Amino acid sequence: MNKICLLALRRSYATTSTSTFRAADTIIKKTEHGNPKPDPNKLVFGANFSDHMLTIKHTNASGWEKPVIEPLKPFSIHPAAKVLHYAIEIFEGLKAYRGNDGKIRLFRPDLNMKRMLTSAERSVLPIFDGNELLECIKKLIQVDADWVPRSTSSTLYIRPTLIGTEPTLGVGASNESLLFVVTGPVGPYFPTGFKPVSLLADTFHCRAFPGGVGAYKAGSNYGPTIYVNQLAHSKGCQQVLWLYGDKQHITEVGTMNVFMYLKNKKGANELVTPPLNGLILPGVTRQSILDLGRTWKELTVSEREITMDELLEAHRENRLLEMFGAGTACIVCPVERIIYEGKEYNLATMNKGAPLTIRFHDELVNIQFGRKPSKWTVDVV
Amino acid sequence: MNKICLLALRRSYATTSTSTFRAADTIIKKTEHGNPKPDPNKLVFGANFSDHMLTIKHTNASGWEKPVIEPLKPFSIHPAAKVLHYAIEIFEGLKAYRGNDGKIRLFRPDLNMKRMLTSAERSVLPIFDGNELLECIKKLIQVDADWVPRSTSSTLYIRPTLIGTEPTLGVGASNESLLFVVTGPVGPYFPTGFKPVSLLADTFHCRAFPGGVGAYKAGSNYGPTIYVNQLAHSKGCQQVLWLYGDKQHITEVGTMNVFMYLKNKKGANELVTPPLNGLILPGVTRQSILDLGRTWKELTVSEREITMDELLEAHRENRLLEMFGAGTACIVCPVERIIYEGKEYNLATMNKGAPLTIRFHDELVNIQFGRKPSKWTVDVV
Repeated sequence: MNKICLLALRRSYATTSTSTFRAADTIIKKTEHGNPKPDPNKLVFGANFSDHMLTIKHTNASGWEKPVIEPLKPFSIHPAAKVLHYAIEIFEGLKAYRGNDGKIRLFRPDLNMKRMLTSAERSVLPIFDGNELLECIKKLIQVDADWVPRSTSSTLYIRPTLIGTEPTLGVGASNESLLFVVTGPVGPYFPTGFKPVSLLADTFHCRAFPGGVGAYKAGSNYGPTIYVNQLAHSKGCQQVLWLYGDKQHITEVGTMNVFMYLKNKKGANELVTPPLNGLILPGVTRQSILDLGRTWKELTVSEREITMDELLEAHRENRLLEMFGAGTACIVCPVERIIYEGKEYNLATMNKGAPLTIRFHDELVNIQFGRKPSKWTVDVV
Repeated sequence: MNKICLLALRRSYATTSTSTFRAADTIIKKTEHGNPKPDPNKLVFGANFSDHMLTIKHTNASGWEKPVIEPLKPFSIHPAAKVLHYAIEIFEGLKAYRGNDGKIRLFRPDLNMKRMLTSAERSVLPIFDGNELLECIKKLIQVDADWVPRSTSSTLYIRPTLIGTEPTLGVGASNESLLFVVTGPVGPYFPTGFKPVSLLADTFHCRAFPGGVGAYKAGSNYGPTIYVNQLAHSKGCQQVLWLYGDKQHITEVGTMNVFMYLKNKKGANELVTPPLNGLILPGVTRQSILDLGRTWKELTVSEREITMDELLEAHRENRLLEMFGAGTACIVCPVERIIYEGKEYNLATMNKGAPLTIRFHDELVNIQFGRKPSKWTVDVV
């Protein structure tokens, strides 16, 4: 694999610079006509939205305006806005969880704020104090607290987004930007229990590359994958297993990070995920699984490169125990089948019910919903 | 270099399918208050817009709506529209030229229509009959004919764009789309004669990669370049020379295709541009330079891979005669200096006034403005 992609963060996550908005300045305009809540049993991911949104405008000339919480409504966007032409757009995804104790919590939102700032910097979009955005998001969730499902599995999805809105057609940094946050209730990814997925390991299409933006949550990483995901569907697979380079390094699965649990050649039980080498999105769930796994001290936890050859060798030798994707939407997503170079490989993941995958799932869900105390949660209400 | 990226075009450029809009159905709503025209001597690229725009909506359920020509105004876009999050967006760029004979002409617009369809297909956006879009664009220019500069160098820039507008946050094909075209007057790229540019040959950042979308005019190719272009500016360069892979293959320059004119080791005068191997945008100016050069039968015209090593060897041995970028905005753009691995290379391009570069420029401009008859131009009015 080529060089490591490390963008020097010139400014820290929690800046004290005046070039940020302040949550204390937030203007709140509540709607008088809230929308009816959708049936919590029929939630489709990303299709339902809460009553309010947060918007914060920025111009290079005047800096950040005051944050505004207002009823969700369409934006007025000039046809030449750079976001519509040059994909000057980044986003984040996190969730709010309502516990049995009535509290609403966020899960490691500091990691989302930090990543959003690295994405903004790589996209030459304006930066800000991540703590202030987090406080704005808390205010937004407080206003729409009724939209956080009363459920042990449904949650409120939160989508911070930052786009370049300057209405000029030159390819260049956007002098006008809009930061906004929309939220909406989402159901559990697996409402009826784990459904393992099949993957198309595509040897031609590529998600990210050295010197690109694969390590940032930029819109540019997603549009080009849709065609490839349709190829996967046409072959009976739900997701793409993204490979890179001549040695077919495993990088990600669908829009998730990927983990393999195997008995390595030394006989040790090893949990492997690809390292943050510039091709991999630094996922919050990924980091949390690594952190949890290391706490347990029962298995070797490795961030290292792994090729299709190594994966298939472990599979052939019955050393591949489990494989799963990891992301905010599903938490964990077991993989049971891979199509690679025309051949099908039926993995052992579900043979014993994917105990490690489920252990991570349960541990994380218990923390997120406040059933297990943790420093990783942040109270909203 | 890895595999060649060729997307099978399942449908041809001029489809007879009913799943297209028809120019004959166009609804025209003219403004009663045209905007004042900008000073033709102070035109900034992409900052001025004509009075009208073309919009055509599409839903997967109902297909294409009727084309509408109406006064330019902001779009109403839902905050969850896929274009704002996942860069589901493609575009084209072409120009209308007013000749001394009063006629307004387009230059090889069929190539833009063809490329737009390949971009749409790769982005899982709806396709259409390219001839119909071309006829719609002609109608738009007829309505705004006064906006086509009366000039021997200024032109009307035309920006067809296609975006995914479905307001749901799942990463997937957009069931709602908007095709639109805006236009605006632009001045000559070099108002006071050729200004050769300096390039930063970046060995880390990468524009495109095998299995990606470098061969399509997708927004995703542009956003990630802005940061790198700022790096180039910080080193006193105007543009980035985009390289690929361990052997530092030369691919593009800035947002242009790249040409090198050299005396090769066999002593022949050779014009080289990288081949359409999936990393290169199939530029209309690129194709026209290749076509013209081949007609002249005076030089060897090659679409072949070329590395930094070969370029610098030719430079050292005084065999590199000229180097230039090629694109719709500038037509040709001479390169006089490259910074590569910390060293500066002052190229011979301008030593004798860049005669080949200028010959291509003049030939193309004469065709575009109708001073030289050609099958490549299409009359609008």
